[in-house]
Amino acid sequence: MSDLLAEASALDARDPLGPHLDAFVEAPGVSAYLDGNSLGRPLKELPERLAEFVRGDWGTRLIRSWDEQWMDLPTELGDRIGRVAIGAAAGQTVVADSTTVLLYKLMRAAVHAPGGRNEIVIEEGNFPTDRFVAEGIAAERGLTLRWIDPDPVTGVQVGDIEAAVSERTALVVLSHVDYRSGALADMKAITDAVHNTGALVLWDLCHSVGVVPVELDACGVDLAVGCTYKYLNGGPGSPAFAYVNARHQGVLRQPIQGWMGAGDVFAMASAYAPSGGIRQFISGTPPVLGMLAMQGMLDLIEDATITAVRAKSKTLTDLVVRAVDEELAPLGVRTLSPRDAGRRGGHVTIGHPDFAEVTKTLWAEGVIPDFRFPDGIRLGLSPLSTSHTEALSGALAVRDALR
Amino acid sequence: MSDLLAEASALDARDPLGPHLDAFVEAPGVSAYLDGNSLGRPLKELPERLAEFVRGDWGTRLIRSWDEQWMDLPTELGDRIGRVAIGAAAGQTVVADSTTVLLYKLMRAAVHAPGGRNEIVIEEGNFPTDRFVAEGIAAERGLTLRWIDPDPVTGVQVGDIEAAVSERTALVVLSHVDYRSGALADMKAITDAVHNTGALVLWDLCHSVGVVPVELDACGVDLAVGCTYKYLNGGPGSPAFAYVNARHQGVLRQPIQGWMGAGDVFAMASAYAPSGGIRQFISGTPPVLGMLAMQGMLDLIEDATITAVRAKSKTLTDLVVRAVDEELAPLGVRTLSPRDAGRRGGHVTIGHPDFAEVTKTLWAEGVIPDFRFPDGIRLGLSPLSTSHTEALSGALAVRDALR
Repeated sequence: MSDLLAEASALDARDPLGPHLDAFVEAPGVSAYLDGNSLGRPLKELPERLAEFVRGDWGTRLIRSWDEQWMDLPTELGDRIGRVAIGAAAGQTVVADSTTVLLYKLMRAAVHAPGGRNEIVIEEGNFPTDRFVAEGIAAERGLTLRWIDPDPVTGVQVGDIEAAVSERTALVVLSHVDYRSGALADMKAITDAVHNTGALVLWDLCHSVGVVPVELDACGVDLAVGCTYKYLNGGPGSPAFAYVNARHQGVLRQPIQGWMGAGDVFAMASAYAPSGGIRQFISGTPPVLGMLAMQGMLDLIEDATITAVRAKSKTLTDLVVRAVDEELAPLGVRTLSPRDAGRRGGHVTIGHPDFAEVTKTLWAEGVIPDFRFPDGIRLGLSPLSTSHTEALSGALAVRDALR
Repeated sequence: MSDLLAEASALDARDPLGPHLDAFVEAPGVSAYLDGNSLGRPLKELPERLAEFVRGDWGTRLIRSWDEQWMDLPTELGDRIGRVAIGAAAGQTVVADSTTVLLYKLMRAAVHAPGGRNEIVIEEGNFPTDRFVAEGIAAERGLTLRWIDPDPVTGVQVGDIEAAVSERTALVVLSHVDYRSGALADMKAITDAVHNTGALVLWDLCHSVGVVPVELDACGVDLAVGCTYKYLNGGPGSPAFAYVNARHQGVLRQPIQGWMGAGDVFAMASAYAPSGGIRQFISGTPPVLGMLAMQGMLDLIEDATITAVRAKSKTLTDLVVRAVDEELAPLGVRTLSPRDAGRRGGHVTIGHPDFAEVTKTLWAEGVIPDFRFPDGIRLGLSPLSTSHTEALSGALAVRDALR
């Protein structure tokens, strides 16, 4: 126990990202925030950034800002996410809509592909919205959903995919990091396995972007969607991003044809002609206000480097796994995440029948993890805003509440 | 000429909404902002509202705010818009997504209606995104688009609709206020004419909400979509709203099935079961940050009353029409809006072959109207943020730039 505290202090003392902890808004009454994997914390600089935006770009430049900067913001910000966090060369990433709406657009685009393939392979362990979208599309397009259900703790393996895909597969929909266990999938090997059958793959990056380095181009990924309000700290409901590999642009067509995705936005043309590049995946007016907060976090990640963020993520989750082994397991708590940090994303999930009640107690006390039905607690550790000491104190607070 | 100036001053002197002019952020260098119909101006209170949100609801309450308030925000804010601006009883309006995405959801829901009706009647003069969405849906669902093309200045009439709708019509898509001319449609008479054939009607309220009183319930409207960044001043790309009349809820199904529209959001269920009410029209995580700015404007409209806003809108547009007649028509400027204020929304459109060049000159000088291809200038007059003197000076600046 005192070993754990000493270890946490030592890790913090030599943490190269330590100075960034002070960049986030303080939360009076909160002693441990362990839900950065659901909603990242705001930066202290944000109120001033927003005030300048309201008075300047919006309030003074007014409608002129569309010409001056906002029209290109969805693709510029997409390129930036591509460069800083997901290994995507420019022109393939765009910020727009919610994760759900982008999943719909990309899945619909993918299953419109020629070739008569009529199956979507999808994991039971995908986040509900991914499954719900696929279920709706399968019903409307007359496709079959082929479910796979790997062990959530070990996560999806190449063998699971090889056993499920075939010449009937149009699309495979997978999560890079499992939202339940944090299991990290082997993106390159699985993408290759999908491509061997001629199908496309769509990766959900919601639980990896900003905490695990992603290499979409290097892995030859076809399509990806990710969330910006978790480890990119974009704020509640900030818009998601979509990645469409350059080789598919101009080939795959998304169904929600809107003026902002047209080739000439202000021509007021009588028929829709899509923009040639990634811009075609935009539909309506981009949510500019919702794109401001994540910019400060992208600055931080670029400065710290995603490699250093990942390194700290591993020491954070390793420390928590050790604390669970030593202090919580004796109380009947199960570890529901991979034990190897290399196979894990940024959160650690633990289980106990009393966790619904325990979470209520913890929230009231200012210790804030995430409860997931039926009996899981996720300890989400956002490396730039969380110290090892805070992570450990959160884990130990779970123990104390259980007692 | 001096008559016009005196008239403007007199109107301002007795303007009951005059005191609200000071509520908006000042724009140094801008002498006349005439584009509130594209992007409404921010309120002075907004930076503080945003800062409090960042430090409090987001930064301190953190994930707990979803339970405490954000989960219900889309329907609460929808109800508020319903009450203040569009004549909709509670439980029928929701804020979510962009106008384009909501148009897609509602049109898809409407053409899924049973009965074998296979035509969408739609106006050539609808805003491009409405037409593009309908075009895409018609192609994917095997429907026919039946175009109507009323004179844009007089706008769509009951007779135009009666001539186009039939027992083959599934849906009629119309704009309440024409984005080009400002022509105001007779919502009640047209809705009745559509219903006489058994079809549904979807009204686009983008150019009327917040400036013209709308009575959706009283008119028996089926579906409506509206924008919040024009006369509701929600900021660039703020989320739109959708209205689905209670009689259609639980019957019409929208296609983008997401976790936030499910009956039990956190059950993480294996199959999608939609929420019973208007909530089913939500798909992904609501854009909370984008819902903040419009709240201050709704306060203002509620305080001023939409009736008083409409009354000032008429005196503003009447004054501009008179200025055009007296000062701009002699230079060859055409009036492209209805001359009767009762048949007009909040903007006045004028035409001249040189207006593309004129708009560039005006923008550089801090007079900001809206140019629309090929040769129109729209003078958008947002009653709460625009004085009669400002409106007149903008119109006269167009004259000066033409000379």
